[in-house]
Amino acid sequence: MPQYTPPVRDTRFVLDHVVGLDRHANLPGFADATPDVVSAVLEEGGRFVADVLFPLNLSGDQQGCTRHADGSVTTPDGFKAAYDQLRESGWMTLGAPEEFGGQGMPHTVSTAFEEYMISANMAFAMYPGLTHGAIAALLAKGSDAQKAKYVPKMVSGEWGGTMNLTEPHCGTDLGLIKTRAEPRGDGSYAITGTKIFISSGEHDLTSNIIHLVLAKTPGAPDSSKGISLFVVPKFMVQDDGSLGERNAVSCGSIEHKMGIHGNSTCVMNYDGATGWMVGEENKGLAAMFIMMNAARLGVGLQGLGVAEVAYQNAVQYAHDRRQGRALTGPAEPQEKADTLFVHPDVRRMLMEAKALTEGLRALCLWGALQVDLAHKAETEEERELADDLIGLLTPVIKGYGTDKGYDIATNAQQVYGGHGYIAEWGMEQYVRDARIAMIYEGTNGVQAMDLVGRKLAHKGGRAVQAFFKLVSEEIADAKNIEGAADFAGRLEKALGDLQAATMWFMANGMKNPEHVGAGAHSYMHVMGIVVTGLMWLRMLRAALRLKDTGEGDARFLDAKIVTARFYAERILPDTGALRRKIEGGAEAIMALEPEMFAAA
Amino acid sequence: MPQYTPPVRDTRFVLDHVVGLDRHANLPGFADATPDVVSAVLEEGGRFVADVLFPLNLSGDQQGCTRHADGSVTTPDGFKAAYDQLRESGWMTLGAPEEFGGQGMPHTVSTAFEEYMISANMAFAMYPGLTHGAIAALLAKGSDAQKAKYVPKMVSGEWGGTMNLTEPHCGTDLGLIKTRAEPRGDGSYAITGTKIFISSGEHDLTSNIIHLVLAKTPGAPDSSKGISLFVVPKFMVQDDGSLGERNAVSCGSIEHKMGIHGNSTCVMNYDGATGWMVGEENKGLAAMFIMMNAARLGVGLQGLGVAEVAYQNAVQYAHDRRQGRALTGPAEPQEKADTLFVHPDVRRMLMEAKALTEGLRALCLWGALQVDLAHKAETEEERELADDLIGLLTPVIKGYGTDKGYDIATNAQQVYGGHGYIAEWGMEQYVRDARIAMIYEGTNGVQAMDLVGRKLAHKGGRAVQAFFKLVSEEIADAKNIEGAADFAGRLEKALGDLQAATMWFMANGMKNPEHVGAGAHSYMHVMGIVVTGLMWLRMLRAALRLKDTGEGDARFLDAKIVTARFYAERILPDTGALRRKIEGGAEAIMALEPEMFAAA
Repeated sequence: MPQYTPPVRDTRFVLDHVVGLDRHANLPGFADATPDVVSAVLEEGGRFVADVLFPLNLSGDQQGCTRHADGSVTTPDGFKAAYDQLRESGWMTLGAPEEFGGQGMPHTVSTAFEEYMISANMAFAMYPGLTHGAIAALLAKGSDAQKAKYVPKMVSGEWGGTMNLTEPHCGTDLGLIKTRAEPRGDGSYAITGTKIFISSGEHDLTSNIIHLVLAKTPGAPDSSKGISLFVVPKFMVQDDGSLGERNAVSCGSIEHKMGIHGNSTCVMNYDGATGWMVGEENKGLAAMFIMMNAARLGVGLQGLGVAEVAYQNAVQYAHDRRQGRALTGPAEPQEKADTLFVHPDVRRMLMEAKALTEGLRALCLWGALQVDLAHKAETEEERELADDLIGLLTPVIKGYGTDKGYDIATNAQQVYGGHGYIAEWGMEQYVRDARIAMIYEGTNGVQAMDLVGRKLAHKGGRAVQAFFKLVSEEIADAKNIEGAADFAGRLEKALGDLQAATMWFMANGMKNPEHVGAGAHSYMHVMGIVVTGLMWLRMLRAALRLKDTGEGDARFLDAKIVTARFYAERILPDTGALRRKIEGGAEAIMALEPEMFAAA
Repeated sequence: MPQYTPPVRDTRFVLDHVVGLDRHANLPGFADATPDVVSAVLEEGGRFVADVLFPLNLSGDQQGCTRHADGSVTTPDGFKAAYDQLRESGWMTLGAPEEFGGQGMPHTVSTAFEEYMISANMAFAMYPGLTHGAIAALLAKGSDAQKAKYVPKMVSGEWGGTMNLTEPHCGTDLGLIKTRAEPRGDGSYAITGTKIFISSGEHDLTSNIIHLVLAKTPGAPDSSKGISLFVVPKFMVQDDGSLGERNAVSCGSIEHKMGIHGNSTCVMNYDGATGWMVGEENKGLAAMFIMMNAARLGVGLQGLGVAEVAYQNAVQYAHDRRQGRALTGPAEPQEKADTLFVHPDVRRMLMEAKALTEGLRALCLWGALQVDLAHKAETEEERELADDLIGLLTPVIKGYGTDKGYDIATNAQQVYGGHGYIAEWGMEQYVRDARIAMIYEGTNGVQAMDLVGRKLAHKGGRAVQAFFKLVSEEIADAKNIEGAADFAGRLEKALGDLQAATMWFMANGMKNPEHVGAGAHSYMHVMGIVVTGLMWLRMLRAALRLKDTGEGDARFLDAKIVTARFYAERILPDTGALRRKIEGGAEAIMALEPEMFAAA
């Protein structure tokens, strides 16, 4: 049976030495995030998800959700009780603002906890996850009355939230949506249309569900500039806060999916449902992007979370399973066979998983810090820099993080051999669950286009220049440090590939933007490798420093130093091949007429 | 709903211009494989699998197999009728020897048909596939009496066959098996033990199932040198060929797996079942390897087959789905959106699938030709060369072919966006089905070790030297050909990486064999890229030649030329990064104590 232990020690290491949480203690919310409080969050929150949510992961996958004839949806056995416990324990409110009943902790800290929740049970974690996204949109664009009406009970977890964007004929291209919003003259709108792939669209965990829905008002422009955002509660909320009539929104069916079976993915039918506009008319896409950017970072975290639990199990299996002998002769001659750990190719997969999960953890938490700083840093300059960096890196964290999450889950399954393919061992579920993260909240191809098509050029390339400067400075700084110089030199080469690819886009994208589109996915990976490399440079330096001063667990620090070397030798080299692919341009990719693809 | 069209035109192109089937018309079996006969096999055989087997693929996945209380197993609805049709049509007997009722066609031709059968329904194709493996072992090692007793009805498909190797505690390391074979004194043995992961172990398609089982005789060496092979029929076969008593072998349970649900994966219990030794005592592993080598090529073909059908559907979806606009401005302004084909990143995935499926098709068929030549070529020298090449390339075809098959299926699913994750669209099944091919018949890590640990050094490196010579000569030959010179130059660089990696292994493997193990998987991929590159060089040259002479469909040939360029620009560059990883050696990979992996 699978197991899960929250990687608290590694999270602490990252928060202390990569993120530098204590250096920001002057900022709102951070002052309360004392080392003791953070320890309590990680230790107790980690124990909670491991004890309460993880045992429901495999059973939730096997049972899935059930839609009944009346349109109601039941989550897998145990989910409701676990949700109630989660709500009562307060773990859901960590990062929410205090004025709405939250704990006001830094996003950095709540992100650390969310990784654990995803590892323990990704399908379950999506219920509070979607609620958080809906809260973010209401806080950003809702009126004070809307915030007061909906947000406190969403923060407490009493009510859930959803995002309703996709329709049968449109996903990425939201300009095509057909859902209509007719004004009723009393400030409300009648919403009519069908939305698909609505995660947590209907379920039995909360007494109400607050849907945020994209729709078009009469006469709105027939493009993405004609979309407005609406709040549509499942049950009407009366002035005293109590629940009123059922609204005309219902779950028409639930999807049979490859994975995340414990989350209800719904077709939602709006039949003249009552809704209210959130923010300005025809500005719905911008409002939705606030929600989506937060959600994309959350999906990147899913890549990490599933990879981590898959990796932990593969390590355990490599401990337990005996098969074959070490290439250098029997490691344990008294046993009939050595453990899988003796085999270099098994270790290759485990080391890759270790290097990437620890690197992605640092990246996700450092990215979360940028979210905090963008809102809370003292100077405008600091806020702008943080906003630039997280804007640039959001598609990278989502796209690179989830591509790698899937690779790691696949390799972890591979360590199990045939047993990895059998459902009861739990490994194949991780692969199936990890797969969706590459698709939703904008496919990874869409992330790549967001990166090269929007983020690179944004404000004259200010963000990417700031990123290059940051990495260059840390490389220069590390070059004279014993034990870090080799890593810095290799990272410099990878940065050189990234810079050269950026230049190539600038030189060639003007004549043909398809040259940029054709290299976008590779470019996203180069940037992912470089920024994760920056995280490893910081971890390496911290480990060397702590070893020097005799602080910390020497074996933990030794593992960091070895893993940094692995990252340099086995992951950084990919940037060279990716750069060559980018420089191949678009010609061969765009040359064929569609009919020429078929080999039949 | 998914669709499938056998890629007959491409198969013909490969048989004519890469394999050169007509150049071998002098060899036994090949004389009968006239262009007309081959056309009939591909066209009619292709139509058969598309019409009869493909419609059962999705439903077979959804229904799966059912084990009943009496141990019997029912395959999904329609499988039995389709199997009967397959048997009656004669498509199962293509490659089997004429003396046992087969058609004696070249392995090259039957392989072409088998690709189609896998694409149409991989889980179904495994029933006849396993039978073919069992036939191969009986023909190679069985006595004349055993051959006469079992083979004809296995060739006809009246009876099925299985391979029984794995036990709960041992997969790769077969020296650990515990199944016992006690001689009864009458020439038969009582077989007792439990085998797991037995594909097609029990089902309702055939009147008898002939199990080939690895077991240990009393006093046999406690290692892989103490294993013998036994034939154990489900029903005893009487002297007149009729079926007698039920043997003491039964299906204890069937596995719940990630994919290939239509194939019954059984736990087989042998409770003193009656069996007879096949070949010599304690030489069972060698006998099993005959079967396994054939099976490994068949699994490589599964990588191709599933990739092909997934690719075809992704192409169709890219035709049908409209979303967004071309980067260069609306391609079809009269429509509300352009098709997915306008997006470079979608084309990147489709072109990669096209380049790899067509390349792997050529590789699988050229590999099958080597199997034919190893048995049938006129001179000892030719037979040895073919045997060397296919020995070297079997782990590459299996390991590289199935790694890429999974990647292609994953990318094809990605083209569908959210719909790719939903079961009814059929794409997620291809990913789940493709996944097993990386695991069974020896995981791809085991393939990599077979390649670098056994095949490279075999007979003083004769095979790899012959391979280098072959590729070098074709590169040299192509360098002066207009339109092929650039490709040849890039392939030469990739070959250089392969040769350098080989030298690095020779220089470093002696002091520490773990240096070789640590680079094995990357090396297998470098060789896969180079040999598939050789196939593309041949296809490119044939396309240029035919364009020159005005033969063939110009658009088909243009697509070959463009796709070769894509292969050169987008796939060959990976060898450089892989070589650098190999040259990183084993130190970082082997440095950590097992306990140091956990980040918790």
